[in-house]
Amino acid sequence: MQKQMMKAAVLDRPLSIEVKDVPVPEPRPDEALVKVHCIGICGSDVHYYEHGRIGRYEVKQPIILGHEVAGTVVKVGSAVTNVAVGDRVAVEPGVTCGRCDYCKSGRYNLCPDVVFMATPPVDGAWADYVAVRSDFLFKLPEAMSFEEGALLEPLSVGIHAMTRGRVKPSDRVLVTGLGPIGLLALEAAKLFGVTEIYGSDVMESRRALALEMGAAGVLDPAGAPVKEQLDRLTGGEGVDVIVETSGSARAIADTIGLAKRGGRIVLVGLPTSDAIPLDIPALVDAELDVYGVFRYANTYPAAIQLLSRREHSIAKTITHRFPLSRIREAVETARTQKDTSIKIMIYPNEHE
Amino acid sequence: MQKQMMKAAVLDRPLSIEVKDVPVPEPRPDEALVKVHCIGICGSDVHYYEHGRIGRYEVKQPIILGHEVAGTVVKVGSAVTNVAVGDRVAVEPGVTCGRCDYCKSGRYNLCPDVVFMATPPVDGAWADYVAVRSDFLFKLPEAMSFEEGALLEPLSVGIHAMTRGRVKPSDRVLVTGLGPIGLLALEAAKLFGVTEIYGSDVMESRRALALEMGAAGVLDPAGAPVKEQLDRLTGGEGVDVIVETSGSARAIADTIGLAKRGGRIVLVGLPTSDAIPLDIPALVDAELDVYGVFRYANTYPAAIQLLSRREHSIAKTITHRFPLSRIREAVETARTQKDTSIKIMIYPNEHE
Amino acid sequence: MQKQMMKAAVLDRPLSIEVKDVPVPEPRPDEALVKVHCIGICGSDVHYYEHGRIGRYEVKQPIILGHEVAGTVVKVGSAVTNVAVGDRVAVEPGVTCGRCDYCKSGRYNLCPDVVFMATPPVDGAWADYVAVRSDFLFKLPEAMSFEEGALLEPLSVGIHAMTRGRVKPSDRVLVTGLGPIGLLALEAAKLFGVTEIYGSDVMESRRALALEMGAAGVLDPAGAPVKEQLDRLTGGEGVDVIVETSGSARAIADTIGLAKRGGRIVLVGLPTSDAIPLDIPALVDAELDVYGVFRYANTYPAAIQLLSRREHSIAKTITHRFPLSRIREAVETARTQKDTSIKIMIYPNEHE
Amino acid sequence: MQKQMMKAAVLDRPLSIEVKDVPVPEPRPDEALVKVHCIGICGSDVHYYEHGRIGRYEVKQPIILGHEVAGTVVKVGSAVTNVAVGDRVAVEPGVTCGRCDYCKSGRYNLCPDVVFMATPPVDGAWADYVAVRSDFLFKLPEAMSFEEGALLEPLSVGIHAMTRGRVKPSDRVLVTGLGPIGLLALEAAKLFGVTEIYGSDVMESRRALALEMGAAGVLDPAGAPVKEQLDRLTGGEGVDVIVETSGSARAIADTIGLAKRGGRIVLVGLPTSDAIPLDIPALVDAELDVYGVFRYANTYPAAIQLLSRREHSIAKTITHRFPLSRIREAVETARTQKDTSIKIMIYPNEHE
Repeated sequence: MQKQMMKAAVLDRPLSIEVKDVPVPEPRPDEALVKVHCIGICGSDVHYYEHGRIGRYEVKQPIILGHEVAGTVVKVGSAVTNVAVGDRVAVEPGVTCGRCDYCKSGRYNLCPDVVFMATPPVDGAWADYVAVRSDFLFKLPEAMSFEEGALLEPLSVGIHAMTRGRVKPSDRVLVTGLGPIGLLALEAAKLFGVTEIYGSDVMESRRALALEMGAAGVLDPAGAPVKEQLDRLTGGEGVDVIVETSGSARAIADTIGLAKRGGRIVLVGLPTSDAIPLDIPALVDAELDVYGVFRYANTYPAAIQLLSRREHSIAKTITHRFPLSRIREAVETARTQKDTSIKIMIYPNEHE
Repeated sequence: MQKQMMKAAVLDRPLSIEVKDVPVPEPRPDEALVKVHCIGICGSDVHYYEHGRIGRYEVKQPIILGHEVAGTVVKVGSAVTNVAVGDRVAVEPGVTCGRCDYCKSGRYNLCPDVVFMATPPVDGAWADYVAVRSDFLFKLPEAMSFEEGALLEPLSVGIHAMTRGRVKPSDRVLVTGLGPIGLLALEAAKLFGVTEIYGSDVMESRRALALEMGAAGVLDPAGAPVKEQLDRLTGGEGVDVIVETSGSARAIADTIGLAKRGGRIVLVGLPTSDAIPLDIPALVDAELDVYGVFRYANTYPAAIQLLSRREHSIAKTITHRFPLSRIREAVETARTQKDTSIKIMIYPNEHE
Repeated sequence: MQKQMMKAAVLDRPLSIEVKDVPVPEPRPDEALVKVHCIGICGSDVHYYEHGRIGRYEVKQPIILGHEVAGTVVKVGSAVTNVAVGDRVAVEPGVTCGRCDYCKSGRYNLCPDVVFMATPPVDGAWADYVAVRSDFLFKLPEAMSFEEGALLEPLSVGIHAMTRGRVKPSDRVLVTGLGPIGLLALEAAKLFGVTEIYGSDVMESRRALALEMGAAGVLDPAGAPVKEQLDRLTGGEGVDVIVETSGSARAIADTIGLAKRGGRIVLVGLPTSDAIPLDIPALVDAELDVYGVFRYANTYPAAIQLLSRREHSIAKTITHRFPLSRIREAVETARTQKDTSIKIMIYPNEHE
Repeated sequence: MQKQMMKAAVLDRPLSIEVKDVPVPEPRPDEALVKVHCIGICGSDVHYYEHGRIGRYEVKQPIILGHEVAGTVVKVGSAVTNVAVGDRVAVEPGVTCGRCDYCKSGRYNLCPDVVFMATPPVDGAWADYVAVRSDFLFKLPEAMSFEEGALLEPLSVGIHAMTRGRVKPSDRVLVTGLGPIGLLALEAAKLFGVTEIYGSDVMESRRALALEMGAAGVLDPAGAPVKEQLDRLTGGEGVDVIVETSGSARAIADTIGLAKRGGRIVLVGLPTSDAIPLDIPALVDAELDVYGVFRYANTYPAAIQLLSRREHSIAKTITHRFPLSRIREAVETARTQKDTSIKIMIYPNEHE
């Protein structure tokens, strides 16, 4: 029997991506086939597109990128019970083993055997269809759009950052870097009940969006000394938690001096250098906590719950929409137009 | 009425210390006067003696150093109820305000108004007597010696490090730096039920003492790559927690690569540089926690309880004993003979 | 010099309360004198008024009740630095020792030496003035009314309940009992980011107010089996946390069967019986947590922060206002008209 | 091909157990076949034997009991990598789904789809062989005996009780009920570094064993009021944590009055009544925590680590040993001779 074919954007080598016909995946007994409604472009996708590698992960063979997916279940394996054909779902893109110490103790994001979409050599979902183990599919409430469903992935990073940083609603929080991850971390802080959130970014457009999304104030790290700016904003109170998403060496180093005594620093952004100078005497003297954040765990049901029954503004991060056929233009927009683009959504199944 | 006088070791300026007659302090209503039985020399004492400052604290006027004290209550203020004349006590040397947010929330070590012995300009207790607010005095059980009582102070740092690092008995722990703080951190780990503790130091004598005190194995950072050494010791399992007490820039930087995924790093030692290069991508990828440790809080009753009813070896850290009159020799020993001296005890009230 | 006098409501014995002239208190060096703007009536005030005792606390001599206070600083002791004359403040009514193990470890609500307003034999503040140790005074932001300031006290119970119950924003929460404490616990849950909160009360008026204040649904425990009602509301999902504020024996017993596996039960309400039958096998089988809540600690700064920069509805709980001269009518209203009264505010300094 | 047969003790109905020939189980690809070396008798086994049910679990068809197993791997499925033929292993007897919210968040003991040995209708391992999913097999260190390996199961309950009760080494702990679970909870407390542990049981022999295993003192609940006895033992200090394993209604009710303010009560024992009267006003006033304990999670690697490199006395709980052929005598001993028997070990594969 002939395999059914679908469109998928295949990256052959850096800067070379094109839409090809590939077989529709066949779901295993515990998987469901999802027809992709929309799927975001992540910074990591752009990085693979541009450089062909991130740290220890390298594109050595053609790969389909994309892992911020929402769509509709069109087929289910024989053992699937939690979703049914026709369900609108968000996809958690990392499938874990469920059997190692990390998985069993609730930190499955550290599972050494995770199979994570769009992390070489695993294919992602810039495609018409994707097959996913059904326990990583989450039904969208009626009031939640597909786009919001796709944004659950980057929002998950923000939610995990809140959990890692033990953020309480009475904390003052600073988010450094106001790209998609930073803005969604800001939104996550709001969802955690935080009322006083500051944002920092060198781009004016991004600072403006942060204010529109509810930041109590913004800093420009290219302007006056950041400590001065922050003191002015907080009336000298300082912040309890800093969530660093920019990956800028300078921003990372600055966190130490900006957090209150006893404060917490959550590191999300990946710097390009593996030797960022930190003021350790100050970290010790102020008895700070520093937490690394690697992806997320147990965030999808939480995120869906957090977004329910309240107003929120996660969709404000979407600045562009493209059909899959224009994937190259979409990725180039993400790569080159950082001042005007935040989150870009791809629409497979809208073939022109 | 003429004031009673006592002997005290006064540091006038760097390297200039001598025993003088000073007035015996008069306890306030909520204080008790403690006749000092013995008192340790801390690395910070030596540092003030040698350099006249540590970070933001500077010796600007003559100061009495010393803050690791045990002795006997000889007089109590009118409002004191928790200790009585004749009680053998350990002294917690930092008196906090009890009224700020840090104090009220249980992190009184971060109290901005703390009055901490031997931190300029506050006098310490290299002297015959010291007056202390009585809620910072802790009765020693009969079976606990004065020396063990004085060691509760540096042991407290180790205990606080365990608490900050959320150390569980099933954790594998590496202590880097095996001076007094490191060895007592090792002992604290044992008291927390940890059975597999490794130690690291460049000095063979200190590694040997660590083994004698119960380390499961030791590393020499001047030898083969530390990661290799640690892997050999742990059979490749790695360690869950690293407690860094050396303050060595190299040791601090190495922690990132030595901790297991999801592991915790507790920074106790103060490096001389305020720009230690850390591998942040690795910290994020492994989702590590890093915790600063500044002194301790709520450790004295815990420490007394931990040492009760069991064998322990904290007194093994004491290598030298001097009367107060030989304080200069004692401090010089601490300063110059690091391979043979660990903890040095001063005995005031033993005037030759 | 003649003492200045003020009006105060004095309870001589059960049911006998009247406004008398008493001396204005003189603040000690670390105290401030607060001119009371408004002060709430708490259930405990009503209970002392009616029965002359609560548990181990008994009214043995005339007492001034009232402990939910906001007002203006009119005089400060010599050592006071955190507030100044003219400051609008909320008063935290329990002054703790700051020196016991409970205080030092952050659980000062358990301080055995606490001096708590309106808990016999300590006077409260149904009076024109009250003197308070200044570290228990908290400046009100400009946008916060005195009434909201006075409500910080009962709201603090709700906030402490959230903290004790480790409530996360993604939790489903049920509040049983919708009097002032229950409704403010509901509000506290909202402030913690919770979006799905249910309320339960036998009084229709209180259920209606809960819905108005943002409850996702309400139960009537006098109606269909509560488990059925809750299952209908939650679509069978159940709730993660139950905050019990009614003190009803039935409501307390029911919590066990209503919480999800692994759920948490927070007990705030005091039943009259000291032998409430609980289904322990079910508690063990579902591995529930049960947390007692006794007053609160470290909630005032948090509460002020939580209420800032956002809309909230705590003032909706105020149903009546009386001048101090009508205190008897006010207390009788609280005692006898539970279906129409929630929180009653007394206004001293408004003498007719 | 003819199936290989083995001996197994089959319970047909209450009080009717006999050794029969049943097929040796065939391991699935992710399972290993374990030749059972020894296996304990648990209180639940005895209860099923005597009454045919425990709560919602009922013996409706013949069942093999037993779930405290250690043995040797004799065959592995094709996908097994963590153990090999010849490995000595302990068996964690509950196989969980790994895919539900409970499993993913680290509380897999609450997995609704767990398949737990010797819980009807799932067979246990009073048999020559048992097949187990390999991620629930844990290699025994060379120094650990098979009997100690089998005891990891009841010890796990004690370890989980420590974790649930957030037991710190400085806590004072009381264990009520000194059967196998209580004595192993006492041992778990020791392994967590606790030095001051009390035990309570009506049987003198069990109290004596607790003392032998390191209890600091023991109570007889049939003697003087327990509060008096405990105060005498602790010098009035009281205990921070109570671990209740007896299931006695009286012991459960007594916990409230015995714990310190702010203390924690861990309920392990299952009472026969589902309406145990508790003093809720006292629980609220003292702000206690109560934690249910249902089995355990993530304890096996921890337990193996805790027992390594130190002296311990878990094997002291073993009072009897029987070959499988004498299973009836073994169970009757457990059922009727509680004053002389604690843990009884069955040896399959020792056919007489």
